[in-house]
This record gives sequence, C-alpha cells and structure tokens, in this order.
Amino acid sequence: MRAAIIGGTGYGAIELIRLINKHPHLEVGCVVSNSQAGNDISESYPHLTEIINQPFEKYDADRLAKENDIVFLATPSGVSSKMAPELVDKGIKVIDLSGDFRLRSQNEYETWYKHSAPGEEYLSKAVYGLSEIYEEEIKRATFIANPGCYPTATSLGLLPILKANLADSKSIIVDAKSGVSGAGRGLSLTAHYAEINENVKAYKLGAHQHIPEIEQVLKDESGRLVTITFTTHLVPMTRGIMITAYVNLLGKISTSEVNALYKQFYENHPFVRIRPEGIYPSTKEVSGSNYCDIGLHVDQRTNRLTVISVIDNLVKGAAGQAIQNANLMNGWAVSTGLEDISLYP
Amino acid sequence: MRAAIIGGTGYGAIELIRLINKHPHLEVGCVVSNSQAGNDISESYPHLTEIINQPFEKYDADRLAKENDIVFLATPSGVSSKMAPELVDKGIKVIDLSGDFRLRSQNEYETWYKHSAPGEEYLSKAVYGLSEIYEEEIKRATFIANPGCYPTATSLGLLPILKANLADSKSIIVDAKSGVSGAGRGLSLTAHYAEINENVKAYKLGAHQHIPEIEQVLKDESGRLVTITFTTHLVPMTRGIMITAYVNLLGKISTSEVNALYKQFYENHPFVRIRPEGIYPSTKEVSGSNYCDIGLHVDQRTNRLTVISVIDNLVKGAAGQAIQNANLMNGWAVSTGLEDISLYP
Amino acid sequence: MRAAIIGGTGYGAIELIRLINKHPHLEVGCVVSNSQAGNDISESYPHLTEIINQPFEKYDADRLAKENDIVFLATPSGVSSKMAPELVDKGIKVIDLSGDFRLRSQNEYETWYKHSAPGEEYLSKAVYGLSEIYEEEIKRATFIANPGCYPTATSLGLLPILKANLADSKSIIVDAKSGVSGAGRGLSLTAHYAEINENVKAYKLGAHQHIPEIEQVLKDESGRLVTITFTTHLVPMTRGIMITAYVNLLGKISTSEVNALYKQFYENHPFVRIRPEGIYPSTKEVSGSNYCDIGLHVDQRTNRLTVISVIDNLVKGAAGQAIQNANLMNGWAVSTGLEDISLYP
Amino acid sequence: MRAAIIGGTGYGAIELIRLINKHPHLEVGCVVSNSQAGNDISESYPHLTEIINQPFEKYDADRLAKENDIVFLATPSGVSSKMAPELVDKGIKVIDLSGDFRLRSQNEYETWYKHSAPGEEYLSKAVYGLSEIYEEEIKRATFIANPGCYPTATSLGLLPILKANLADSKSIIVDAKSGVSGAGRGLSLTAHYAEINENVKAYKLGAHQHIPEIEQVLKDESGRLVTITFTTHLVPMTRGIMITAYVNLLGKISTSEVNALYKQFYENHPFVRIRPEGIYPSTKEVSGSNYCDIGLHVDQRTNRLTVISVIDNLVKGAAGQAIQNANLMNGWAVSTGLEDISLYP
Repeated sequence: MRAAIIGGTGYGAIELIRLINKHPHLEVGCVVSNSQAGNDISESYPHLTEIINQPFEKYDADRLAKENDIVFLATPSGVSSKMAPELVDKGIKVIDLSGDFRLRSQNEYETWYKHSAPGEEYLSKAVYGLSEIYEEEIKRATFIANPGCYPTATSLGLLPILKANLADSKSIIVDAKSGVSGAGRGLSLTAHYAEINENVKAYKLGAHQHIPEIEQVLKDESGRLVTITFTTHLVPMTRGIMITAYVNLLGKISTSEVNALYKQFYENHPFVRIRPEGIYPSTKEVSGSNYCDIGLHVDQRTNRLTVISVIDNLVKGAAGQAIQNANLMNGWAVSTGLEDISLYP
Repeated sequence: MRAAIIGGTGYGAIELIRLINKHPHLEVGCVVSNSQAGNDISESYPHLTEIINQPFEKYDADRLAKENDIVFLATPSGVSSKMAPELVDKGIKVIDLSGDFRLRSQNEYETWYKHSAPGEEYLSKAVYGLSEIYEEEIKRATFIANPGCYPTATSLGLLPILKANLADSKSIIVDAKSGVSGAGRGLSLTAHYAEINENVKAYKLGAHQHIPEIEQVLKDESGRLVTITFTTHLVPMTRGIMITAYVNLLGKISTSEVNALYKQFYENHPFVRIRPEGIYPSTKEVSGSNYCDIGLHVDQRTNRLTVISVIDNLVKGAAGQAIQNANLMNGWAVSTGLEDISLYP
Repeated sequence: MRAAIIGGTGYGAIELIRLINKHPHLEVGCVVSNSQAGNDISESYPHLTEIINQPFEKYDADRLAKENDIVFLATPSGVSSKMAPELVDKGIKVIDLSGDFRLRSQNEYETWYKHSAPGEEYLSKAVYGLSEIYEEEIKRATFIANPGCYPTATSLGLLPILKANLADSKSIIVDAKSGVSGAGRGLSLTAHYAEINENVKAYKLGAHQHIPEIEQVLKDESGRLVTITFTTHLVPMTRGIMITAYVNLLGKISTSEVNALYKQFYENHPFVRIRPEGIYPSTKEVSGSNYCDIGLHVDQRTNRLTVISVIDNLVKGAAGQAIQNANLMNGWAVSTGLEDISLYP
Repeated sequence: MRAAIIGGTGYGAIELIRLINKHPHLEVGCVVSNSQAGNDISESYPHLTEIINQPFEKYDADRLAKENDIVFLATPSGVSSKMAPELVDKGIKVIDLSGDFRLRSQNEYETWYKHSAPGEEYLSKAVYGLSEIYEEEIKRATFIANPGCYPTATSLGLLPILKANLADSKSIIVDAKSGVSGAGRGLSLTAHYAEINENVKAYKLGAHQHIPEIEQVLKDESGRLVTITFTTHLVPMTRGIMITAYVNLLGKISTSEVNALYKQFYENHPFVRIRPEGIYPSTKEVSGSNYCDIGLHVDQRTNRLTVISVIDNLVKGAAGQAIQNANLMNGWAVSTGLEDISLYP
C-alpha cells in the first residue's frame, strides 16, 4: 500500500518516512513539498541517503489520489484545511496531522487558531484519532484528525480517573514540558540553539490551541464540563513530552487502587504502560517508540492525584499514532510496524 | 573579612568561592574538605588555577573560629547539624546552606529527613535566611539557616498573593523543574550524563524534604495553614530552577492588578524582578546571577493564578543568597558583590 | 536462534536487546548480570516494560551454552578474557564486544590495557569483526572480537586511501569526538552530568587503548607500518562518534577522485555511505542506525586529505556491528534486522 | 568613560554590555541597533531588566563620537568596514569585533570573505588586537581589529612553540570545536535546536575565513611561511571553543620541557594559564571568563606536539578581549573588570 506524505520537509513527515519504511504493509509513495519540489529528499535529509531515492513532488490532488492508497497530511494548520477536503472527496484515505479537523466547533477553532475554520461538512466527517479511545470509530473511518501531541499525553493520562467518576472535573491542572522538536523545523528565536539550550521557558499561558482539544475529549468521555488550566514549557531536549497533571479526587482512594484502575483501563492497549507504585516514567524511556507511559501518585495530605504521562512527541504524539490509526483503518494489528523498543539511552 | 567554607568539594562551595572572590569586603579563608585535605583546591577545580592558591584543610573548629570571621557550611544535611552548634558556640557568624536548621519542628525534620534532628536550642537560634522576607531578623542574626533552592523560588513567587489574602491556601500546586547541578557533585545514576541528557524525570513525588520548609514559610507569613502539592522534575540542563505554581483566587482580579501587587511587594528588593503582563521569565535569564524573576498570569476561564518564578539554583538558591545574608548581617548594601548581569546566552 | 547477553546492565547489552528484539532470526535468550541476578530486567530498564519479561541471570557457562545458540559478551575488558575461552570451548558461537581479543600481541595488550592478556590460543582463534573488511573470515568464524567504536569509524574512514597507496602512512592524525554513552553506565565524575554538559574535554592523549587496535588494522591492510597520533574528546551528547582524520597525500588527487575511490571501495557494503563532494556527515545523521557515513575533502593548499567519519557508537560501534557479524556468521543477509533509518532529529 | 556598542542585538554586544557594566572605568553609552531603534534593550534581552534602562538607538556617527569615548563595533563583516572609517576619522577610539580589518591584504580579504575589502588606509591604521602578543602596539592604538575566536585560541596555543623554532611550520593541523553561540543570533538551520542538539557537525572545510587570519599571525611572529589545515566543528553547547592543534616537532623535546617553555612565554600574561603535564583544560573551565587555558602533550611515538587550547568564544574570543584591549589602550591594568572566575559548573 502506497502512502503519500504532504509537508515533506517538516519533522512530522520525516518521522512518517522512518516509520513507513519499516512497516510491512506500507511503502513510501509521493512525498510532497512545494518549496523543495524536484530536489532529492536526501539532499534536505542526508540521513535518508541510499534509502529514500526520490525527489520531493509538487502538490497535485489528482495524481496523489491516483498513485497512492493513503495520504498523510503533515502540513501546518490552515494548510490542511485547504487540501484535506479535495483529497477526501476523491475517495482516498486521509490522515491529517494538523489541528484543522480536531475541534468540532468552528467557533472554538477560530477563537484559538485565529484563522478561518474548515467547513462543517468535513469537520463532521473527520474522526478524532486518539487510537486507544476511539478504536472502533477509527476502524470505520476514511478521514482521521490525528490528535495533537499534548492532547495525546494528557487525555490518555486523565481519562481513566475521569471516566471512573473519581475526579473533580473543575480542578484539573496540566503542567506540560516539551522537547524543542515540537516547534517544528521552521526557524524562530524560540528554537534557536543558544536561546533554548540550558533553559526552561514557559509559553502561551492560557492561550495554547491544544486547550479546547483536550477539553473536548475529556468532556466527551466524562460527560461533564471540563475546564483546565494548561501551561506549556519548552525544555532543552529534542524529543519527548511529559505532562504532569493534578486532579482533586472525589473520595478516598489509594495509589495502588488508582494503579489497578489504570491497568485495567488499558488492558488491551499495548502502547499504554502503567508504571508500578512509586515509579514514574521519564521521557527518554519512550524516545523513538509509540508508547505512552504513565505513573501515578495519590498525595494523602491533599487528596490529590498526580499523573505523569510521557510520549515521544514525534511518534505517539504525531507520526506513530498516525501509523497506528492507519493500522486500525486497514484492519491490521494495531502495533504493526510500531513494535520498536525505544532508543535508550 | 575572612570567610571559611566547609564542604569544599561540592558545587555550593565552589560557587561561594566564585562569589566571595569578587566581593569587596570578603576574602576566601579556610576551605575545608576532610576527604581532600592537603590537596590543592585547583587540582579538584582547575578553573581556579592561579586564582585560589591554597589547599583544602581538615575540619578544626577552633582554628576555623580563630582565623575566620564568618563560616559558610556547604555540607550535607546531617553533617551541618554536627558542626554548626560548636561553631555558633565559639561566637563566629555561621551561615548553613544545608536543610538542618530550617524546620523549627524536630518532629517534622525527622519525618522528612529520615535522620535525627539538631537540638532545640540551636534550631531556635537559627534565623531562616529568605533575605527579602526576613531582612530585619537577618540583620540581627549570627546564625542563618539558608533556604533551600525550591523554597526560595516558591516562597518568593507565592508570598505576595498569599499575604494579600487573595489566594485559596489549600489549592496551591507547585510544579518545579530543576537543572541537574541541584543533585550535587556526588555520583548517582540520576545525575549520570547518558541517563538525564535528553530526558525529563519526575522524582520524590509527595516526599521531597522541601515541602515542609515551603509550608512553614507560607504558613508563618499568611497566618493560615498551607498544604501544598509539590512535584519536582529534573530537566537536562546544569543550572536553573523554574517553579510553576497554581493558585485558586479568592475573588476576581486581573493579571495587571496582580502584577502591580507583586511590583509593590518587591519595590525595595533589587533581586526580585516582575515581568510585564504576557511575558514570562526563563531560567537562562537569571543564570549566574542572584535574581529571582517572576511572571504572572490570571486565567479568567478558571480564575486561577499561574506564577512562573525562576532562579539560578546555585546562586539565589544557595551561595548567592548566603552572600546576600552575609551582607545583611554585616550592614553592607544588600547587593554588594552580587551585581553581576546573568551570563546570557 | 536464542542469543544470550552477558554484562546485561550496561549500555552495550541494552542496545543488543533492542536490536535482537527486532531481528527476524534472533530472540533474546539469557541475560546475565551477576550483580542484578534475580531482578527483572525492566526494573533496571523501565523502557523494556512489557517487552522483555525476564530476570537477569547468574553467569553459568554450561547453562548458557546449552540454552542459547550464540553469546554476546558485553562485559568489560579483563572480564571477557575469563569467560570467552570456556564458552568457545563449549562450542557455542561467541561475539565479544570488549577489547580483550582484538590485539594479536599479548605484549601490546598488556602495555595498553594494564592487565594480563588472554592466552595465545584464544587470541589466535578470535576473528577481528570489522564487518566490511573481514567479511569472508567472519563468515567462517565462531569467535569474534568485535571492534572498538573509535577503531570502527577510523579504520573505515582510512582504509580506502591507505590501500590505494595514496597516503603517507606516517602522517596520520585522528581527532576523535565521542558522545558520553561511550563511557558506559558505570558512575564517574567524567560522565557526571554537570561536569560534561556544556563542555568539551580531551582525555587519554597518546594513551588510549584503541591506538594499537587501529594501527594493527591499518598495518595489516596497508602492509606498511602505521603510527598514528590519536586524540579523543568527550562532547556533550549521548550517542555518536565523529572522527576527523588528516592524511598527507602522496601525489595530487582531487576531492572528486577520492570520492570515487571511496564509493567504489564500499560499493557492496550497504552500511558505509559516502557523502557527495562538499557535504560532510554529522553524527545525528546515523543516530540509532548501523551506518558509517563518510565525507572527504582534499585541501589543495596543503595536499592533505581530511576524512570525516561518523557512527553511532552503540550501534555500528558496538551492538549493531555485533549483529552484523552474527548475520555473516549465520549466512543471513548482512543487513538483516539492521535496516532502520536513523532517528532524526 | 562612556562606551558605545554598535550591533546591539547580537551576542557579542550583549556580552559587551555584561562586561562594561561591571567595569570600574567604563559605562554603557549608546547601544545602536537600526532594526530595533526606539525599543527598550530589555525587551529583546529580559535578563537586562532594571539593569540597562535605555532604548536601542539609530546609527548616527556624529552623535556617537560626541557622546561616547570609545566605540565597540559588534557588527558583521561588511558592515564594520562601512562604519569604522568615519568613526576613526572623527577621532573616537574604535574597537572592531568583526573580521573586516584583520587581514592586511585586500586581496586575501576578498578571496576569503567574498565581498569588497576596506580601503588600504584604514587597514594599515588598524592594530591587530591579540592582547598578549601585540600589547605594546595596542597601548598606542586608537583603532583595533579585535581577533576572531578561532584565531585567538589557535594563535595563543601555537605561538610559543613556533617562536622557539621547534615546530615544523608546514605540518600544522588545527581541529577546532565550537559552541553554537559562535554562529550568532541570526536564525539558520545550522543553529536550529533540533538540528544541532545531540549532534557534532563539521563545516566549511578548507574554506573558513579565519584561516588567513591565523596564518598571518603565525607567519608574522615566526618569520616563516605557515600553511595550516583547519577544520571547524559545531558541538552541542552554547559557549566555548577548543582547538586541538597538531605540530611535528623539530628535534626531541619532552612534554615537561614544552610546558616550561609555555609557562615562561606567558609569564606576565594573567589570562593564559598552562595546565601541568598530563592535565588538559576543558571548555567549561573558562566559561564566562577571559582565560585561555592550554594543555600540552608530546607524543614520543610520533614526535608530535598536541596543543589543547580553550577559551570562551564570547569572552576571550570576542567581548572580553575587546575590553582587555580597551584596558591597554587606556593605560589601565590589563585585567581591569575581567577578574571573574568562570561559571563552573
């Protein structure tokens, strides 16, 4: 099955190429980059030398749909919303890694993203691809809105306690730490080496576009209105996201009971691993892999649950989950091509 | 004035040497390290070559008191508690950088530190050296318990809102991120390069010995019982601490009102700087300096205040604040020898 | 085929587990660590949770030989020399990742390694496993001395020009830069985060035990006495080695001619890639992969060739080349299980 | 004495501000940045909040000369060549940190810098500001071409052996490693965090514009033609340069003899420190300071000298040496305002 990738020069696309290349049922199809069209991919990415021997191509919806079986959009918000509809209309499976089709409300989208929302018709067609939670819908889908990196780590970390009705849904605070690759390959002072090395930086307080996405999932699944406080921080590393989430508990429950609850919740989901009591995952433990690892601690003094949830932002937070969704859509085993142990150290 | 340093091979001591060396009224006196006694300091620390030309010495309380005018204890918890009392008894000024004399309650100390507390007599003699808050007491003191790194950043970040009676004192959550130098120069897997580089790691959830220290200060100053949730994380950098603190507000107040409140609170305190609305400090902005920089954001959606407070853990979080306290104890201007601009980038 | 790993707690072993786990013809057999025997592997290495579900075992040569088909020794120098002989005698295939069986001369070994050499009998049985160069011998071997990380990058970088009789064999200077994982998981001040982060450090000038190993290979293959100047540096990153080698050329030759020569030399060797003229590989371009990437530049002003050769020290410099050798010994395609694209960025 | 800084938004300027601020005889005068004119300096550089309370200004040669006593040009090559002449003509002391006035030959300049050279008149007026070597000329100078970072570390590392006629001047190879701040604050993929973190990268082989500068100094001082091979590498850290230089020795000489030679050569120069035999400096040991630390090793096997020379590229490699030159020009003690111990760790 040929997989096209649009937005070929970004880190999401490059990670898709890495994963597709080792997938037994997928092969790299057209790789689209309008700015680099005609140039060899390995010129921009020498690590692909002698592995990917093809040039970037210009975007051409007809050709894409004809020559490929599935399209991954690794394009920025505002670009996907233009391309996805025509690709969907041509009947090819589409997985969009941008934020364009994740929010159901056009209004919410425009408030947080600050540009026009896609049309209702396509918003309602898109299935939100949080693989562990919407597995059945994804299996039947042909158009996926692949979740954001922060929402993936956060939602997987909070849903078990919320769905068990044990959390005060108004008390949720999420303190997120991300590696710098999440900022993409576009140049900016924030991602300039000398500015972010040996530095921790908080950004977009109360204004991150992933806030409504997280609240939408948590509300959908818990049936209650959820308003979160969400703070994002850049930390000096390339890959990895850790979210540390704080929840006031309704009633008394021990760490070991919470652990059991989470283990059961993710029983049939190989990519979510719960650490034993007293052990917390670090981001390096999932680096290069599709795992979301979770550690839990109930503070008896405050009756608050702390959830530590880590992912590789480029894998489970982007390209890996996209492949996981492709597996589901095609009826393949969920972990096909994604079995790799993380690169440690 | 000659300043002795005990615990000479650790990072705290080395930072004290750096700061004392540039202080107009202090000079480096005896530097004590029992394990390295007799060896040149610059053998352990070649960056001191041709600057500090003296050997480490054995601990000898009499000689220390006779040949020096002030003693800085950069020794671990459990060691300071043995040395400080006899030095205090000999009448020399003592500033202890360990946690041994910070908690007033022996009981609390033993619960969190897991070894025997110092005697009541010396606990009550020690003045808690959070310079901006206890300036008057410090000026009259001869024995200082220098605050911990996390408590310094946290207390300075939370006291203005708490003292203004605008914060729900039970709602406080502190998410702390620290560079690895905070773990000291002692070897451990946690500080092993390949384990912590490209990694974020949460540790000691609900069990960090700085929790009772923070709660003691906040309670003392607010007059209300404060129980916090406190999570510490190691991030891959050498220096710097950021705390991100979350507080439920009592009543409506805007970010700019909170900003004004903080600016006024620290009006006469040159080492605390409040960033303008919408701007948040990063750890590199204080690296190598004695500043504590603070950014503030009120989330109208949740009526919660987020406080970003950053320090250099080895300066304002240890050696710098110790010098600041020495300045106060000796009647010198508070910023004497501490005026340096941070090393950026 | 079951593969045993001895020295299970080190980074070499952990990388072997990662690679064996994805190898179609190998599975992880006994993992031996005397210090951790009985404990679950995933306790020491949580990234293996739910993937490797077995404890470390005690060293027992009989059991090892009986229950496994091949043994990888990821033990330190001085330990392998004790274990390898008895395992070899039991008829099981052995690949030793230490330096113990690489030097043919006992004398040389003792001069550089500072402890007793293994017996002649086993030294002469061991085949030096530089896969691209000794492919035929490796195919017939049952006991492999897997090359060191620096010698792999250096020898692959220098052999084409030396074998073409175009290099002054007395002029060779090798300036090597290594990530810190090369120092292993054992604690030391050199690998202590705060000491090596934001730091470049030269070490073991003229005294590195890889010097005689490199000289042996270069001499064997060029037929001329080779004495090199070799300087190793630690750079603040976890994985990767770059060697920058300098050679005086005999006669005039252009960069493009040298490029052609190297391309031809490695024509049938998929893991060595030659960059085009003017392009030089960086270590990240091979991170996590088994590639050795080489860039070449002839300086017309000095008639000197500069060779840039990069590998991932834990893959092509250790575990990956060991698997490559296992492939050759077993008649499998040389790249079986090693096809992964490097993890970029 | 008021010191103006032109090119105010770059790292060189920011480092000048840091150093001038602590200098007893200098104060920060006009800070010029045409792109940021009118904006507060502390908006671009929040670490200067409440310390530097002035806006960036537009370039105006008349006003600059009138209101300041000395001008530091921290402008790029090609810009300094336009500004320096008119400032020099107005009689104000000028220290140019760019490469524009370092090469005496216009021809050489245009070959390596690829744009037009400044006029002969000004080239011959400029004194090359390698402080330790040209101290007397600098004392009498009013216009200084401040040396490049690589040439400073290289020349200080090689001159003693060359001037002693013990080095084969045709054999010199310099392998240089630099932190990323050397690339400046301008955005580029090379300085993009995710590209250079966990990476070592060689660049500009045989083409670096510092090559003719180094050769000019070495030739001037040794009286012999010197042609070097020079390779620059970016390593993942912010500050610091290490050069590892290799020289064939003429005749036999031991490491301790070379050490004695170097110690004597720099006897009266406080900023150059020679490590004892067997010890080599690391870049962190000079971070934030004006030191150039040197380690030496004679390899008896090859009769080659290896020189390890480290500096902080922004201090001794730029702003610090500029201040050192200002001290000399004004008759102040050479280390005035530069006595700081490096920031370690």
